[in-house]
Amino acid sequence: MSERMEYLLSQLEPFADQIDEANERVVARMRDAQPALVDVQVARDVIPELAGERRTLLHAGPPISWEDMCPPMKGSCIGAVLFEGWASDEAGALELLGSGQIRLMPNHEAHAVGPMSGLTSPSMPVLVVENRLDGTRAFCTINEGGGNVLRFGAYDQEVVDRLHWMADVLAPLLSAALRSSRDGVNINVLMAKAITMGDDFHMRNAASSLVILKELLCLIAPLEWDEDEKRACIEFISAADQFFLNVVMATGKAIVDCARKVEEGCVVTTLCRNGHDFGIRISGLGDQWFCAPVVEPNGLYFTGFSAEDANPDIGDSAICETIGVGGMAMVASPAVTRFLGAGGYPEALAYSNAQEKICIAHNPNWSIPTWDFKGTNLGIDLRRVIETGITPTINTAISHKEAGHGMVGAGTAQAPLACFERALEAYCAKLGIE
Amino acid sequence: MSERMEYLLSQLEPFADQIDEANERVVARMRDAQPALVDVQVARDVIPELAGERRTLLHAGPPISWEDMCPPMKGSCIGAVLFEGWASDEAGALELLGSGQIRLMPNHEAHAVGPMSGLTSPSMPVLVVENRLDGTRAFCTINEGGGNVLRFGAYDQEVVDRLHWMADVLAPLLSAALRSSRDGVNINVLMAKAITMGDDFHMRNAASSLVILKELLCLIAPLEWDEDEKRACIEFISAADQFFLNVVMATGKAIVDCARKVEEGCVVTTLCRNGHDFGIRISGLGDQWFCAPVVEPNGLYFTGFSAEDANPDIGDSAICETIGVGGMAMVASPAVTRFLGAGGYPEALAYSNAQEKICIAHNPNWSIPTWDFKGTNLGIDLRRVIETGITPTINTAISHKEAGHGMVGAGTAQAPLACFERALEAYCAKLGIE
Repeated sequence: MSERMEYLLSQLEPFADQIDEANERVVARMRDAQPALVDVQVARDVIPELAGERRTLLHAGPPISWEDMCPPMKGSCIGAVLFEGWASDEAGALELLGSGQIRLMPNHEAHAVGPMSGLTSPSMPVLVVENRLDGTRAFCTINEGGGNVLRFGAYDQEVVDRLHWMADVLAPLLSAALRSSRDGVNINVLMAKAITMGDDFHMRNAASSLVILKELLCLIAPLEWDEDEKRACIEFISAADQFFLNVVMATGKAIVDCARKVEEGCVVTTLCRNGHDFGIRISGLGDQWFCAPVVEPNGLYFTGFSAEDANPDIGDSAICETIGVGGMAMVASPAVTRFLGAGGYPEALAYSNAQEKICIAHNPNWSIPTWDFKGTNLGIDLRRVIETGITPTINTAISHKEAGHGMVGAGTAQAPLACFERALEAYCAKLGIE
Repeated sequence: MSERMEYLLSQLEPFADQIDEANERVVARMRDAQPALVDVQVARDVIPELAGERRTLLHAGPPISWEDMCPPMKGSCIGAVLFEGWASDEAGALELLGSGQIRLMPNHEAHAVGPMSGLTSPSMPVLVVENRLDGTRAFCTINEGGGNVLRFGAYDQEVVDRLHWMADVLAPLLSAALRSSRDGVNINVLMAKAITMGDDFHMRNAASSLVILKELLCLIAPLEWDEDEKRACIEFISAADQFFLNVVMATGKAIVDCARKVEEGCVVTTLCRNGHDFGIRISGLGDQWFCAPVVEPNGLYFTGFSAEDANPDIGDSAICETIGVGGMAMVASPAVTRFLGAGGYPEALAYSNAQEKICIAHNPNWSIPTWDFKGTNLGIDLRRVIETGITPTINTAISHKEAGHGMVGAGTAQAPLACFERALEAYCAKLGIE
């Protein structure tokens, strides 16, 4: 720890009770969240930022300009422009994006989140998760499956055609299915089941995707609907091993956006990356971003790829770690630990034990059998990160650094300490400490 | 260990290499098994013992007479007689069963297995699992779901009506679905997935039942079939958390019945209970049973029930432990450990480590992430059981001791040591040791 950080922490001491009490209120909201997947809607109908006259695209991570975007995120922007019909080819899309006519803004500033480049455009369907604790709603696009997909920067005809099918066929059926249920799909219950089945909910959603498939199936089956469309949709969802990732992301956002309404304390309420910067936000400083350059993930690469092919860390999916799953819950998922190159069960246990040191509480909703039924970690305390030097461990897919080459591996990435140091400076300044 | 057992083990020493080599051949067959769920058929069409003129019922465990059966097994017999239409009411069924006109024989003697009382009657549909290693086929009835069901001795109209629906509606659809796939459902692959999701495959089949639901769904969806029937069948399978238990049981039987063709060595090839006796068989002594009175399971009881309500240990489901899952693989399933009253992760680990001491090998097909990716235990060596005094730990449902009251709890039951001592006596006798 630097002398400066040591000094700031010591100056915070007199405020400890007050900060702890505020943090407890933030964490209580996270713990008491009641997320339910209630609908699928067209983005512009639920996200006001996408409904205005000005063409707008939402992206992953903290704010970033078109020029600074990494190639996969640029590719995703091109794909979104083509999908919206704002340009008819790559050249036209590039010209439009370079002209500055399109407003680019973080998902996180519009109650949304998105995996990898995280592009959300007005006509895309989004999952709607409602946090029944206070009605906060949050949104995430629907998982496209694996392979050649927009979130890794691909934008060829196959990708755009799939996005249209998702908007025209999949979304209306999912919406009808979810609306036919009185209460939607209870996500706490679903995650409680799936965490006993080895999911970390970030890199591994094998079980949760099966559990929600079963839930959706029981809603889809009785619908009066074209049987071929039903079949195609069920097969699409069945084939997407990470289908639940986008659901847990919308869930995480609905949890933190409710907790963020307590504008006090120093609980970390956002962790995200745009491929260039890692950005965090804390409860007491509302919408203010604290950024630092992202790191390269450490991990295992698919055959034929290496760290040289890797894009820097990217995506809003670190919302998982923000609510205590993903890398925070590594012990729940020793199967994913090996996939990430992070060892076996003892290493998985060590990861969760380390992350426990920077957290305030445990979430009794999601009890981990392989952690002797302890609940997931909950509520990252900015002060503890600075004290221990331990930053959140993000389980992550690794994207190729060029657009459209897709996923080349998986690993872990540490959130850069500098984000937290900047946040502590600002938080102290707010309290009059200089 | 008794002096007698010590003496017999010492007399086996000179044969050690020969026995080890034979055991290795038995275990190799178990390890190299290639089980696939290929069809659903009417029992009498695939089990010759049920096809003859003499009315026959198959039951769980080693041989037992009508008089010696426990009340739940008697209840199941009555239900099977009513389902077959051999009698029109309870009194008629009791008279028929008491008259000795119905032949009662163990499932295990007819390439079949069944959970709890395990009744298999000629008109019931059975799952057909084929072991592609040598074409061995084995059979198990389809899981009826929870609650008021035949396997716990219930035989009212709801139970009999459900059995008819399963035979008339569910079975033809499942058969058509499985036959439409070229290779059936590959069970090694499915279990490899599900063992990373916390299933022990005996008391917990939550994940495997979801994985096979997805497999079946993709086969059912494209079939030209009445859509209402499809829907009803999918909902029935979706609701059965233990659907996969019956599949893994048929799988286990297809594995051991292939391995049993090596009629040498002292690998345990059968573990089963009829509610009165625990019966085992070993590779070198073919079809010979070695029995001892069953024990009461230790476990947790549902609200309102206690050990006083418990039926003694019952069912062919210990086929799971025979092939190295269930209690042998407790470490894969810390979630079930608590349900069984057997502790948390350290206790689960201790169970599997103890069972490892009586096994010859590990099964690389089913790698357990929570055991640092070690394969499941494989091949119980009779000698090691006697040497260590450790008998197989069976994870088990606990039935009410009266017919039709259903499941009252879940726990673990140790196979009685006396079975193994008797088997060792007989095995030594075969080798000329007295």
